[in-house]
Amino acid sequence: MSYFRDNIEKLAAYVPGEQPAAGEKVIKLNTNENPYPPSPAAMKVLRELDGDLLRRYPHPFAMKFRETAARVLGVGAEYVLVGNGSDELLSMIMRAMAEPGRRVVYAMPTYVLYRTLAEIQAAEIVEVPYDEQYNLPVDALAAAGGAVTLVCTPNSPSGTVAPTAQLKELAGRLKGVLVIDEAYTDFADENALELVGRCPNVVVLRTLSKGYSLAGLRVGFAVGKPDLLKGLAKVKDSYNVDAVACAVAAAAVEDQAHKTANVEKVKASRGKLAADLVKLGFKVWPSQANFMLVRPTDGNAERLYRELKDRRILVRYFKEPRLEDKLRISVGTDDQNAALVKAIAELI
Amino acid sequence: MSYFRDNIEKLAAYVPGEQPAAGEKVIKLNTNENPYPPSPAAMKVLRELDGDLLRRYPHPFAMKFRETAARVLGVGAEYVLVGNGSDELLSMIMRAMAEPGRRVVYAMPTYVLYRTLAEIQAAEIVEVPYDEQYNLPVDALAAAGGAVTLVCTPNSPSGTVAPTAQLKELAGRLKGVLVIDEAYTDFADENALELVGRCPNVVVLRTLSKGYSLAGLRVGFAVGKPDLLKGLAKVKDSYNVDAVACAVAAAAVEDQAHKTANVEKVKASRGKLAADLVKLGFKVWPSQANFMLVRPTDGNAERLYRELKDRRILVRYFKEPRLEDKLRISVGTDDQNAALVKAIAELI
Repeated sequence: MSYFRDNIEKLAAYVPGEQPAAGEKVIKLNTNENPYPPSPAAMKVLRELDGDLLRRYPHPFAMKFRETAARVLGVGAEYVLVGNGSDELLSMIMRAMAEPGRRVVYAMPTYVLYRTLAEIQAAEIVEVPYDEQYNLPVDALAAAGGAVTLVCTPNSPSGTVAPTAQLKELAGRLKGVLVIDEAYTDFADENALELVGRCPNVVVLRTLSKGYSLAGLRVGFAVGKPDLLKGLAKVKDSYNVDAVACAVAAAAVEDQAHKTANVEKVKASRGKLAADLVKLGFKVWPSQANFMLVRPTDGNAERLYRELKDRRILVRYFKEPRLEDKLRISVGTDDQNAALVKAIAELI
Repeated sequence: MSYFRDNIEKLAAYVPGEQPAAGEKVIKLNTNENPYPPSPAAMKVLRELDGDLLRRYPHPFAMKFRETAARVLGVGAEYVLVGNGSDELLSMIMRAMAEPGRRVVYAMPTYVLYRTLAEIQAAEIVEVPYDEQYNLPVDALAAAGGAVTLVCTPNSPSGTVAPTAQLKELAGRLKGVLVIDEAYTDFADENALELVGRCPNVVVLRTLSKGYSLAGLRVGFAVGKPDLLKGLAKVKDSYNVDAVACAVAAAAVEDQAHKTANVEKVKASRGKLAADLVKLGFKVWPSQANFMLVRPTDGNAERLYRELKDRRILVRYFKEPRLEDKLRISVGTDDQNAALVKAIAELI
């Protein structure tokens, strides 16, 4: 007998993007971090935290953050469930809803973790192809009969957005749950939050990792009908969000002005970077995220990824079907982006 | 079709101990927190954290803490896997090893979460009774044929310790994995860490929540053979430990002097509290943890729990078989314990 379940033995672990050591001098455009610092108000909360908050168990539902986020979104606190990053919420959804004989459905290419989490649950996986423009394949997704159907919007790695009207149609045609993963929504022109009130089977996922520059803090949340969230909470670790993260994240969400200013800077830089890469002959997918999918003229993305890495510029290369000839590039500061464009111009 | 898996629909969520709001004036002896503050060196690290650490994703394996903890324990870093509290490690073990047709085995009464996690996995559960002295039922546990066998030592709620020799014998007789949950080991006279080198199927769990006064930070870790930990890591969230927790926990583990001083105070208070309760006619189980299981003379533990709560003293009452007539009392400061003893003397 192996110590592990069969599907775990067979599973290849999800490999996150490279993380250079703190202090290492690299231009890091590979894991979609925000190039600007987190809210000073949030950092102040961090610095003034009372030791007693660390000594005691945190609130099981991270109430302070939950209430703040709910207020900012304009929903009741019972519509919000907080997690240790939105990855944990994805994991909770799969643990609560996916198993052998129940289908997990999503369109590809997308966030690779969906597959890993479905494989951990030994669920039946249905992968529907996106077309080249990354239009949401509503019919194929609806027909697949998922217990869990996931749409990442803006999608990673394409940066493209699924229109809310199409998501609404899809939700209406599904018997199972529709997870709308809006990790990158702070950089987009539209979001699907309004569907939570209208569709009982919709869960919207948000994170503080991108728009709020808090990837290191691990705070994400689900927005959905209270009954749905109650079921998910059954598989939640009792104290899944630590007291520091809860307090700091609450202050960050409170500081909308800081987030909005940073997001606007990233969006402006995104347009500039895309134009520069098009000038170099790249195909650039229209992005509403803080990254963009690009195809170098010669399609030799792996070589370019390596040669950029030699120059201490990290971008993301996925050795996956339909992505071998492309790169996903996070939007940095204008200086970082200019250094990238200069390096690419020299390398191609 | 329900949105949820059948066993999740049926599952009663684990209910953690009551957490009064910060600032509420209560004597809190219900969730085994350490009554003394965390290491000043750890608090200093917290106050001086750089915002860039929050902006970027944390190390996927919390390397700074992992290496520090490994050094303090005298093992290689590859023998340590860090989690968001030891609860997350328990959850990872179950997700990787438990499923229908594979057994999860433990002796009762013990930490109720084991059952919840096994139920989430729809695993077959075998619960073996402890005798009144909480001797480890080695034969019954070995005979049950667990894919996962769990022993909490010091055990909650009894505070009793399983001798290392018996754990070694049990590990040798098992084909599956033996999880030795040492959350409370900082307060005990012996621990089973040495078995990790000798038994390929042993995983020892530790936490910073108790001895280190960091329940609010959510850091625990597993110690085991690297191959075993690699399998567990497959079901780990990519960035399960946040950057703040990693840095603060590393400083706390470095500060052994602070922890040891607090642990010695708690142990001295434990002896005093036990003697006082015995004087009041209570049966007190011999504890090597920072809490003790006690039986009031009249066995009316629920009434006493309620009346103490009315006086703003929280202790833990479990409405569970074999525990209805008992209380689990966390060891507080001498002042807190004296207030508890005084209140009990007035109430019985």
